[in-house]
Amino acid sequence: MNFTEKVIDTCTRQNSLLCVGLDTDIAKIPQFLRDSDDPIFEFNKAIIDSTCDSAAAYKPNLAFYEAMGRTGWAALERTIRYIPAGILKIADAKRGDIGNTARMYAKAMFEVFGFDALTVNPYLGGDSVAPFLENEAQGVFFLCLTSNAGSKDFQYFSNGQLTLYELVAQKVWCWNGKHNCGLVVGATHPEELKRIRELAPGLPFLIPGIGAQSGDLEASIRYGTDGNGQLALFNSSRGIIYKSTDENFAEAAAKEAKNLKELINKIRQSLLQNFSDG
Amino acid sequence: MNFTEKVIDTCTRQNSLLCVGLDTDIAKIPQFLRDSDDPIFEFNKAIIDSTCDSAAAYKPNLAFYEAMGRTGWAALERTIRYIPAGILKIADAKRGDIGNTARMYAKAMFEVFGFDALTVNPYLGGDSVAPFLENEAQGVFFLCLTSNAGSKDFQYFSNGQLTLYELVAQKVWCWNGKHNCGLVVGATHPEELKRIRELAPGLPFLIPGIGAQSGDLEASIRYGTDGNGQLALFNSSRGIIYKSTDENFAEAAAKEAKNLKELINKIRQSLLQNFSDG
Repeated sequence: MNFTEKVIDTCTRQNSLLCVGLDTDIAKIPQFLRDSDDPIFEFNKAIIDSTCDSAAAYKPNLAFYEAMGRTGWAALERTIRYIPAGILKIADAKRGDIGNTARMYAKAMFEVFGFDALTVNPYLGGDSVAPFLENEAQGVFFLCLTSNAGSKDFQYFSNGQLTLYELVAQKVWCWNGKHNCGLVVGATHPEELKRIRELAPGLPFLIPGIGAQSGDLEASIRYGTDGNGQLALFNSSRGIIYKSTDENFAEAAAKEAKNLKELINKIRQSLLQNFSDG
Repeated sequence: MNFTEKVIDTCTRQNSLLCVGLDTDIAKIPQFLRDSDDPIFEFNKAIIDSTCDSAAAYKPNLAFYEAMGRTGWAALERTIRYIPAGILKIADAKRGDIGNTARMYAKAMFEVFGFDALTVNPYLGGDSVAPFLENEAQGVFFLCLTSNAGSKDFQYFSNGQLTLYELVAQKVWCWNGKHNCGLVVGATHPEELKRIRELAPGLPFLIPGIGAQSGDLEASIRYGTDGNGQLALFNSSRGIIYKSTDENFAEAAAKEAKNLKELINKIRQSLLQNFSDG
């Protein structure tokens, strides 16, 4: 099964397009957990236990683990092993380097950690990303149009016909020979998302920015999914995992994840209904 | 002392523009070291001992350490602590993420590891890099024009007046309020290096690609340094650390580093002489 099929299969089985971002920050987890031997893992374990019925994917952001040094790295390894089989494990790594080095990052993410996919920065070009794309079952989400305000600085750079983010979408489309490429497109740019979906019809999209960053969920589902209401993963991190900072944090996260999963499903059902009616 | 001053100070004291890349790969280090408790650190220690008279900077590429999992992470921590004071420690990390995440990467690189500088991918724009630039003593080398063939894919994208790599150089110049910004420009593009030096006169350049990648050293020194033969660090990784794979690897690395340092100095002296004669 190639990575694109794996995304569709997982989202169908879980009946969910929700990706839960594990941006676990020691300063933000409940006080009572901080005294445990491995607080980052204990927090993640509780979040995974309570949200795994709602999630199609988990996406740890590696920065949060690196900031803890070796302890964080160990907690990340345990977290990945703990995620149930049949849910996607995506490394939000935003890596990217020349060929011989990219090969090492691919080894780290796919072999050492056992992620199913990672995010990659495309700035270094085609030869830099080839080592990530050798195995059809292992996926890469390339940064295309990011959710932050600074995306304006370079991603909208244009030659009059094409912006840089559109060029990225086109190139990634060409790199997709093994059906294992995807794109990261922020929910804060719904109109551009529509255009990017046109440029890359068969690619899975990873769509951050629907939670703390206040992206437009309805428009993101409309433009981000394909004609079957598939091929998009909507990420929420802080909005789920820090919904409560009390002892009930896991139940609060469970409720928020379930609500968000159901809201996404409701919107996509309604869009599909309108589509088939129309 | 701000980072730019620190680069000049270090290069002056060491009388060197050489950066030694610690891309340490367990599969490439001498056989006899592989049985030690911490082979990656033992290798780096021997390389540092034998090259520290010639180096102005050491640049571990984080991919090589991540690919070893926790063991690699620990070896990197030991390596950084082992580098003598007064030599720059640059993380070749090529990180880059939205603000709250970039802050975590900054913490990881500057606080957890204690690097003096890191490489950052500018694709996400100004707000994504701000957390790296808060302390004037800590530097960032932004990817501008990379040494690989794939740099053509996006970095040369042009609006007719300006290419993307030129826009990056211009923006980074604007971000340099604390004199702690630099640029990564591959030695494989000497003509473009000239142009980038014009766009960013006061910025330190980190210049890879002079070794295994066969960049043009003479032209890179001519165009990469400033009018005082300063503000450029020339990186060689594989060409130094794997010069020999026998028991004598450290002496071979020492000799190669010394030769390269002296060759760079000879060329820059001759360019300064011609300049003052002319």
